[in-house]
Amino acid sequence: MTMAEHDSTSEITRKRDTYTPESLLAVAVEVFIERGYDGTSMEHLSRAAGISKSSIYHHVRGKEELLERAVGRALDGLFGILDEPAASRGRAVERLEHVVHRTTDVLMAELPYVTLLLRVRGNTRTERWAMERRREFDQRVAELLRAAVAEGDLRADVDVRLATRLLFGMINSIVEWYRPPAGSTAATDERVADTVVRMAFEGLRK
Amino acid sequence: MTMAEHDSTSEITRKRDTYTPESLLAVAVEVFIERGYDGTSMEHLSRAAGISKSSIYHHVRGKEELLERAVGRALDGLFGILDEPAASRGRAVERLEHVVHRTTDVLMAELPYVTLLLRVRGNTRTERWAMERRREFDQRVAELLRAAVAEGDLRADVDVRLATRLLFGMINSIVEWYRPPAGSTAATDERVADTVVRMAFEGLRK
Repeated sequence: MTMAEHDSTSEITRKRDTYTPESLLAVAVEVFIERGYDGTSMEHLSRAAGISKSSIYHHVRGKEELLERAVGRALDGLFGILDEPAASRGRAVERLEHVVHRTTDVLMAELPYVTLLLRVRGNTRTERWAMERRREFDQRVAELLRAAVAEGDLRADVDVRLATRLLFGMINSIVEWYRPPAGSTAATDERVADTVVRMAFEGLRK
Repeated sequence: MTMAEHDSTSEITRKRDTYTPESLLAVAVEVFIERGYDGTSMEHLSRAAGISKSSIYHHVRGKEELLERAVGRALDGLFGILDEPAASRGRAVERLEHVVHRTTDVLMAELPYVTLLLRVRGNTRTERWAMERRREFDQRVAELLRAAVAEGDLRADVDVRLATRLLFGMINSIVEWYRPPAGSTAATDERVADTVVRMAFEGLRK
């Protein structure tokens, strides 16, 4: 672990001479995922980024601001979906399928940011805020599910809360194994999103 | 956290005067899940169990034996499913649905043991063995899926490997939120297992 960590750190250091808030964020998210947010110090961030702590403080007030920006990026991606035309017009079931498809896309495109969001536990104000926003998103999806049942398009013999949990369980599990193709840092795999929608809505049976 | 941990520890200590290998295992699994296997020392186990380290050594050779017994219990439950009559006779799709239903049951009935199995990462021989056995179980399920496609009962437009991953993603996510009803340590909720099977095989659409 220390070996690999060291290698990837030096690679990152080699690649960059200057840091932008964006590139610093990308490094911070890697370290947060690796060590956990609680277990990460400014010293760890400084070593991973290959820049001094005072250079980091030039960009951000501290590690909580980095966490806020990182989970904020994931949440912006997710909530952005709900504002898309296909999520706001038409039958609830079509809107729901669109949201499920796009949620899977965003998870893949923003993989480290969504991974971090899913791992956050509520020890600080920012973590509690992130959990609250995540619950809010889940509730918006549960409402769509409820509306689709009311419109007669989804089976009524399934508990909405339970179905929402299983649906997100399936989608969120993708962070455990999905890795973008080499050379790309943010690539979605349409086949994955299509299969999620097909499996959840049509089922595996012919 | 420390508060809650302390409370539950004293409760356990109050309840038991003597330890059996079984009750020691239950405490060890709680501690492994809480601190991670790597982060657990014999000292932690001794404190949580309220007995001396030498009393623990009276039952087991060390913490790796406790891990082996714990994940072994989860794996015995899972592999036992494959030997059930309903998993070995009839059309592949029926066998597969049975296995998915029963896997969900076993996850709920053996919640802490399966949770630990799912969190194991390969740092020791026992952890690598557990991961290997888990992969073996996943592969047995993937084979059933492949057979059900070949028999024409499952849609052929879904990649078997991907579908297996999503299926286990959905089932395994249950450990994140399922808690057995108060007063019961091993209760399954038929509604949960039914919904998993219905959603995965029939889909949410009417």
